[in-house]
Amino acid sequence: MMNLPAPSTLVPATSEDAAHMRAALALAARGLGSTWPNPSVGCVIVRDGQVVGRGWTAPGGRPHAETEALKRAGSNATGSTAYVTLEPCCHWGRTPPCTDALIDAGIARVVVALRDPDPRVDGAGLERMAAAGIAITMGVLEEEARALNQGFLKRLSENLPLVTLKLATTLDGRIATRTGESQWITGPAARRAAHVLRGRHDAVLVGSGTVVADDPELSCRIPGFAPIPTVRIVADARLRTNPAARMLREGGPVWVATRPGHSDASLGVLRAAGAIILEVPGAEEGAGLDLPSLLRALAARGLTRVLAEGGAALAAGLLRNGLVDQLAWFHAPAIMGGDGRPAADALPLELLASMPRYRRIGVSMVGADLLSEFVSTAPSASKAPSPRRLA
Amino acid sequence: MMNLPAPSTLVPATSEDAAHMRAALALAARGLGSTWPNPSVGCVIVRDGQVVGRGWTAPGGRPHAETEALKRAGSNATGSTAYVTLEPCCHWGRTPPCTDALIDAGIARVVVALRDPDPRVDGAGLERMAAAGIAITMGVLEEEARALNQGFLKRLSENLPLVTLKLATTLDGRIATRTGESQWITGPAARRAAHVLRGRHDAVLVGSGTVVADDPELSCRIPGFAPIPTVRIVADARLRTNPAARMLREGGPVWVATRPGHSDASLGVLRAAGAIILEVPGAEEGAGLDLPSLLRALAARGLTRVLAEGGAALAAGLLRNGLVDQLAWFHAPAIMGGDGRPAADALPLELLASMPRYRRIGVSMVGADLLSEFVSTAPSASKAPSPRRLA
Repeated sequence: MMNLPAPSTLVPATSEDAAHMRAALALAARGLGSTWPNPSVGCVIVRDGQVVGRGWTAPGGRPHAETEALKRAGSNATGSTAYVTLEPCCHWGRTPPCTDALIDAGIARVVVALRDPDPRVDGAGLERMAAAGIAITMGVLEEEARALNQGFLKRLSENLPLVTLKLATTLDGRIATRTGESQWITGPAARRAAHVLRGRHDAVLVGSGTVVADDPELSCRIPGFAPIPTVRIVADARLRTNPAARMLREGGPVWVATRPGHSDASLGVLRAAGAIILEVPGAEEGAGLDLPSLLRALAARGLTRVLAEGGAALAAGLLRNGLVDQLAWFHAPAIMGGDGRPAADALPLELLASMPRYRRIGVSMVGADLLSEFVSTAPSASKAPSPRRLA
Repeated sequence: MMNLPAPSTLVPATSEDAAHMRAALALAARGLGSTWPNPSVGCVIVRDGQVVGRGWTAPGGRPHAETEALKRAGSNATGSTAYVTLEPCCHWGRTPPCTDALIDAGIARVVVALRDPDPRVDGAGLERMAAAGIAITMGVLEEEARALNQGFLKRLSENLPLVTLKLATTLDGRIATRTGESQWITGPAARRAAHVLRGRHDAVLVGSGTVVADDPELSCRIPGFAPIPTVRIVADARLRTNPAARMLREGGPVWVATRPGHSDASLGVLRAAGAIILEVPGAEEGAGLDLPSLLRALAARGLTRVLAEGGAALAAGLLRNGLVDQLAWFHAPAIMGGDGRPAADALPLELLASMPRYRRIGVSMVGADLLSEFVSTAPSASKAPSPRRLA
């Protein structure tokens, strides 16, 4: 890890900084789900109190937010202040470093919410700008930036993506009748909100039982919302996914994660249908996959934000392994009764005190249904402070 | 049914009437749970735009709201307008009729939200006042008054009390671990709110399993909230209630509803412990009671508002029989998993379309838990328009 710039080059925040950084964070939020493996960054350029440029990470991760904002600011960038939600990059990737673009544009001050822990940056971006005479202000709305970037940060620090578990149940936590009837428990507004959630995540993850039972598309069907198609992932230890499944016919990336040892023929049929096969070790118990291994494989492929949509076996597996960072729970105003299919299989719990508990960060009416949003209160997820609502 | 007063004696509402009636309804709400078998009524007396008297039905049902308000108004009642949430009584009961008190006090106009369907009143109160020269205005906030009086009205029209089903569960609808551990799923604020709900109902109803497992007091333990002790009722077909149960030791009325045929000795032990025994036919299927018969027995004893608190068998039985008018559901921010005990046993449902659905009328944060309030959308319960929130 490199050192932070010497204190002499750090300048304190002004009274205006938080408002401009909040605007930059709002821009950054637009990119969630579309920038992986890159973080989604927002940038606002302000000269004499006037916003002269705005930008956010483009779909696919490039151009970067700073580039977009500088382009809009043009010659107004000279002597201005740039608000950036994450430390600007200082390394050559597919694009020149943003630090150099900010220096070349004559930016006088850069306000940064959060240092980028990527080892290629990690303070070096700040040093480079400071060395070029740019005044640096650090840590404005740092907690909010950390929450927004939770997926990116978790991938860097734990080699795991952020996982949001989304469930749509009756008041008594049922997702289908005992005969399997499940369409529709929640209403059309809740289904639209669920598509927005998909668009804000890099990928949707389901168990193979859901694919076999419901043959879902799992796409974000809100026009223009997800410029980068959401990856659809099936946790499918037994390779039950039908090559003619709707999610494969519909186009867009589909990853099928399965245990090693299936025949080349059966894998070939799925590959021919467009699936990418990920080999993941099986769980020590039961017929499923080792879910920490599955998520590490997803992070290794660049995913930062994964929306898990069930079914009950996958939900319980993620909960059991402490892998759920956020919950998005839609409750329909209805009661199914005790023979309905549960939202999550047995964890199982020996003690009430060991039950997974969450902190509610938002409640909203979605048509006749209620959406409650939560963040985990478990130690591992508490590293990242919670956002005001799920980003 | 008698006739309404002739249209010539009805005067239209003024622009002030709704506000005063809303105040009267708020007073009436204070009596819910404490006035059975009487309705809870509110009365506001207004002279020259000034409130000169307020009253609501006293604990136990007497004095009536009008009597209380007239007492406070004193000589200011002359020439004033009285706002009453329910048609004033015109029959001699334990007290003289309110119509005569209003006439004697020189009230000039009476504004009534709702006609009292009690066959001893049912328009006769209006007629009597009109005959005495009082101007009558009808139907101001009638829907709200109907919602407030739903328990009283349902008892009159269907010989059944209003039933509110209260449940406190995890997000996935569980009330205890598979080993039966259930204290505490929801937090202290939710438990206090549940005590308020008890205080607003005439009685609390539980299944015998709850008494055997948890030995609850089931009292409203908020000082001064329930001046009339809430009746505790156990649906106990097999007479499993322990005579040493806490609810019997704690004092206050306890009713044990059971099938006929138990020995005089076993009944006698419970009676000696303070229980009142209600004999109710058994259900056609299973070991329980016939719940419509049980509720008719409760209405026959004067109960208008019953809070059912589970367990899962009682909840399912009430739902199966279409006996739930209102739901109060506390969701704790936690997940139990599929081996936890369900909030309601199997209904069972053959079709998703036949699932009991409710209309959400309120959502509130109660500590870390969320309270959602609902009214039934079933035809029988839709007779009474919903209140803004559960009264």
